[in-house]
Amino acid sequence: MQRNILTRLLSSPCPRLQRYKSVSLTSEQYPNLKRGDFARLQDSDVQTFTRILGSGNVLTQPDDVEGYNTDWLRTVRGQTRCVLKPKDTEQVSEILSYCNERRIAVCPQGGNTGLVGGSVPVFDEVVLSTSQMNKILNIDLDSSTVVAQSGVVLEALDTELSQYGLMVPIDLGAKGSCHIGGNVATNAGGLRLLRYGSLHGSVLGIEAVMADGQVLDCLNTLKKDNTGYDLKQLFIGSEGTLGVITKVALALPPRPKSINLAYLSLKSFADVATVFRRSRADLGEILSSCEFIDKECMKCVTENLNLSNPLGQSEFYMLIETSGSNPTHDEEKLNNFLENMLAEEIVSDGTVATAPSKQKEIWQLRERIAESLLVDGYCYKYDISLPLSVFYQAVLDMRQRLGDRVVTRCGGFGHLGDGNLHLNITTPNYDQEVMDLIEPFLYEWTSKYRGSISAEHGLGFKKRNFIGFSKSAPAVMLMKKIKQEMDPHGILNPYKVLPDF
Amino acid sequence: MQRNILTRLLSSPCPRLQRYKSVSLTSEQYPNLKRGDFARLQDSDVQTFTRILGSGNVLTQPDDVEGYNTDWLRTVRGQTRCVLKPKDTEQVSEILSYCNERRIAVCPQGGNTGLVGGSVPVFDEVVLSTSQMNKILNIDLDSSTVVAQSGVVLEALDTELSQYGLMVPIDLGAKGSCHIGGNVATNAGGLRLLRYGSLHGSVLGIEAVMADGQVLDCLNTLKKDNTGYDLKQLFIGSEGTLGVITKVALALPPRPKSINLAYLSLKSFADVATVFRRSRADLGEILSSCEFIDKECMKCVTENLNLSNPLGQSEFYMLIETSGSNPTHDEEKLNNFLENMLAEEIVSDGTVATAPSKQKEIWQLRERIAESLLVDGYCYKYDISLPLSVFYQAVLDMRQRLGDRVVTRCGGFGHLGDGNLHLNITTPNYDQEVMDLIEPFLYEWTSKYRGSISAEHGLGFKKRNFIGFSKSAPAVMLMKKIKQEMDPHGILNPYKVLPDF
Repeated sequence: MQRNILTRLLSSPCPRLQRYKSVSLTSEQYPNLKRGDFARLQDSDVQTFTRILGSGNVLTQPDDVEGYNTDWLRTVRGQTRCVLKPKDTEQVSEILSYCNERRIAVCPQGGNTGLVGGSVPVFDEVVLSTSQMNKILNIDLDSSTVVAQSGVVLEALDTELSQYGLMVPIDLGAKGSCHIGGNVATNAGGLRLLRYGSLHGSVLGIEAVMADGQVLDCLNTLKKDNTGYDLKQLFIGSEGTLGVITKVALALPPRPKSINLAYLSLKSFADVATVFRRSRADLGEILSSCEFIDKECMKCVTENLNLSNPLGQSEFYMLIETSGSNPTHDEEKLNNFLENMLAEEIVSDGTVATAPSKQKEIWQLRERIAESLLVDGYCYKYDISLPLSVFYQAVLDMRQRLGDRVVTRCGGFGHLGDGNLHLNITTPNYDQEVMDLIEPFLYEWTSKYRGSISAEHGLGFKKRNFIGFSKSAPAVMLMKKIKQEMDPHGILNPYKVLPDF
Repeated sequence: MQRNILTRLLSSPCPRLQRYKSVSLTSEQYPNLKRGDFARLQDSDVQTFTRILGSGNVLTQPDDVEGYNTDWLRTVRGQTRCVLKPKDTEQVSEILSYCNERRIAVCPQGGNTGLVGGSVPVFDEVVLSTSQMNKILNIDLDSSTVVAQSGVVLEALDTELSQYGLMVPIDLGAKGSCHIGGNVATNAGGLRLLRYGSLHGSVLGIEAVMADGQVLDCLNTLKKDNTGYDLKQLFIGSEGTLGVITKVALALPPRPKSINLAYLSLKSFADVATVFRRSRADLGEILSSCEFIDKECMKCVTENLNLSNPLGQSEFYMLIETSGSNPTHDEEKLNNFLENMLAEEIVSDGTVATAPSKQKEIWQLRERIAESLLVDGYCYKYDISLPLSVFYQAVLDMRQRLGDRVVTRCGGFGHLGDGNLHLNITTPNYDQEVMDLIEPFLYEWTSKYRGSISAEHGLGFKKRNFIGFSKSAPAVMLMKKIKQEMDPHGILNPYKVLPDF
C-alpha cells in the first residue's frame, strides 16, 4: 500500500531524480549534526563490493541510489553514493567484515517504509538493502513455523502461508512493501498485536550478521529454549544498530476460518473506551483487532483519498474485528455484543462486514489514513502509548495548545486495544513554530503519564534524542554499553536509536 | 505443590539439619570445580547486612540457612552461612552495592523450585531471598496489567487476580511455592504456553537491581514501547546472573468463563501426534493446553503417589484443555472434535471433566509426575525441545541405550503442544554408569535434530557446560561479554548459566 502511494505521490512529470530533490538533505536540516569519523567511499571499495556481490548488485548511479536516500514520509534525505544488494548471509558477512575493517558506515534498509528516518542514510552511509534476500526457506506444518530470509515482503509471506492455513502474526498498512526482517528489526506492531502479541513473543529465531561480519546463528524454530540469554531479543527493535538480520523464524497462528468486521460510529471517547472494555469481555478469545478513528482523521482519509464512509458523520469510529474457527459461534458472539451496545445506546450506528471485499473497503478507511495525511503537505507524526484513562486527552490538549494557529488538522487514530495512539498534525509546509509548540510539549505530556514516546515506530533518526522521556539514564547507559560491545566502531546505522549526548 | 512434597519427603524423625545433610555438598560432588576469587564472609559483613535489613531479616544460624542451600530435587547442596531477606528495591540495591564493593558472591533465590541447581549456592555465596518482597503493587483493569514485587507466589497472584476476572498467563506444578520473579528470571514455561505464549511476550516491564546496586527501571505497563533496546528481555531467562529482579509488570489475559478438560487414552505416539494436530485445527482459539503422558510415567504417578487413573491401562494418555468465553460454544467444539477422534479410532477411550474438582484430580496425574519420580530414589531429569517428527523417539532411543541395565524407569511426559519433552530416568541411588550412558549421548541426540537441551528448566548449575549443544560459539561469546559488562566482578549467581570454559 505504501509503495503504491509513494509511486502515486511521485508521479509528477519532472525527471525521477528531481522529485527526490524536493526533500531537503538531512545534513542541511540539521546543520549542527556532525558526520562520524567514518571512511569516505573510494573506488577501491566499490570494486571490492562488486567482487563480492557481482556488478548488478552494486548501485552507484545517482539515479539508481536516490530512492534509497529518502524516507517514505519525505522528511529526511541522505547522500549515499552506493547501494549494496546481497543475496545471502555470506555476502552480508563479507560486506560487513570489509566495512568494519575500513570503518565504512552502513545503513541497513528493508522496504524503506519506516516513519522515523531510521531506514535511510543521514550522511553518506552505504545502504545495505535486503531486497534480494527474499526467499522463504522452510514452512513446517507440524510446528507451525516459517523460516525466511529477511527481505521477504510481509504480504508475500502471508500469501504463501495462506495456502497452508497459516498466517503471519503481524499485519500493517505497509504490508505490500515492508520486509519481514525490517518488521523484526523495528519490532513492528500493527493491527493485530492485541490478539497475537508482540514480535518478542512470535519471533522464534534470528540469524544476524554482527558488525565485524561474524554470523550469529540464533535461528531456532523451537517454541521453548532456555539455554542462556535470549540474544535474539536484542535485535528485535534495535533498528539495524546491533547487527543485520539475515533470517527470521516465526511461530505462526492458524489462519482463522471466520473473520467478521464491525464498523461503528460513536458520540464520545468515553463510549469508545466502553466499547473496547466490553468487546474484550464479550468477544474474548475471538477479538482480533480494536481500532479507532476520530472525526478529523476520517475527514482526511475520505476527502484526501476520495474514499466513501458507509456511516454518517460522527465524532468517533471504531473497527472491531473477530477471527475464529467457527463462523456460527463467532457471528453469535459478535451479534450479541453489538445488540447490547446498540440497545444501551453506547454505539450510534454500525455495520458488520463478512465478505472479504467489503472488509477490505472498510479497512482502507483505517489503513490509508497515514497516506491521506501526506496529501495535506507536511505531517508531524506521533506514535505514543498511553493509559486508556488519558488516551484521547493527548489530542484534545494538543489542539488546545495549537490554538488559533493555522494547522490543517490535528487528529488521532490507532490501536486502541493496545493503548497506542497515532497523533498527527498537518500543515501545508514544514513550520518551525508549529514544531516548537509540539515538541517537547507532547513528549513531556506523555512522560507525565509514564507513556511511551514511540509505541511502535521506533526512535530511528528523528526521535533518538527524546529517548530520555521514556527511558531512565541507567537504561540508556546500558544500551550504549551493549552497542559499544557489539559494534565497537559504530558502523551500523549510525545516528539512529541512541541519543547524541 | 512442590513445597508440600518437600515437606513430606523430609518428614523423617531425624533432626531438621540432619535431613539436608543426606545430600552431598556440591563442592564434594564436583571436586574439580574451583571457588571463585570472592571475599569470605566476615562478621563485619553480617553487621552491615543487619544494619540494612534489620536483624530478623539476616539469617546466620545453621538450622535457619540450611533449607536455602539444598535444591528441591535434593541433588546439589551449597554452604551459605548467610541468608538475606530484603523487603524492597532500596534494600536490594544497598546489599548489592555493598557486596559488589566487597566482592561477596550472591545467589538470588525465589521459591527454590528450580530443577537445574540454579537457585542454591554452589559454595558459600550469600543467599538473597525474595520471599519478603511479596506485595502486589497495582492491578489495572483498563489495561489488564499487574505490577508486583518479585517475591509474590505465583498461585497467590493468580488467586488475587481471579477476583477481577483476570489470570496470570503462566501456570506450573510448583505454583504454590514459586515466585513470579523467579518465573521471570528463569523464563518459566508451564502448562499453558501453547495458548498464552512465553514470558518474553507477557512481561511488559521489569525493575531490576544491577550488580553494582544501580536500579534499572524498565517497569513499563504499556503493551507497546519501541524506545531503544528492549533491555528487560535480557533478564528474562538470565537466572539471576545479570541482575536481581525486584518488580515485574505482566499483561494479563481475561480469566476464561468456561474450562473443559478432556482426558484421553491412545495406543501409539503416532495417534498422540494426530490428536495434537487435529485439536489445533478443530479447537482453534479455545485450545489452552495439550499435554501427554506415557505408560511409564502414568505408572509412576499412580503407584508412587497412590492416585487413581480413571481410564484403563494404555500406552499413552493426553490432557486437552479448552478455555473460552462461551460454555455452549466451547462444549460444542470439544464434543465435535472428540466424537470425530473416537469415530476414527484415533483415541481409544476418553472422559471430559467440566467440574473444577474433577479437573483438578485429572491434572494431578500430570502435575505430580515430577514429585512421583523422586519417590523412586534418584532422578536423572531432562527437559528438551524437539520437532514433533522425532519427539518420542528420544525416549525409545534412550531406553534402547540403557538396555538391560537396571534402571527403575525411563519415561516421557510433557508439553506436547510446545514440542517440550520431559524425559526422566530413575534409579534407587545415583549411579555414575547410568549417568555416563545418558550424558552426553542425549545432548548429542537432541543437538542432531536442532532441539534445545533445556526447553524450560534453564541451564543453572547442572547444565551450563552443555550450552554448546544448543548455542553456537559466537552466541556464547556474546553472552559472556554481556555478563562481563553488566556484572564485571561476577558476583551475581556465579557458576550458573555460562560455561566454565
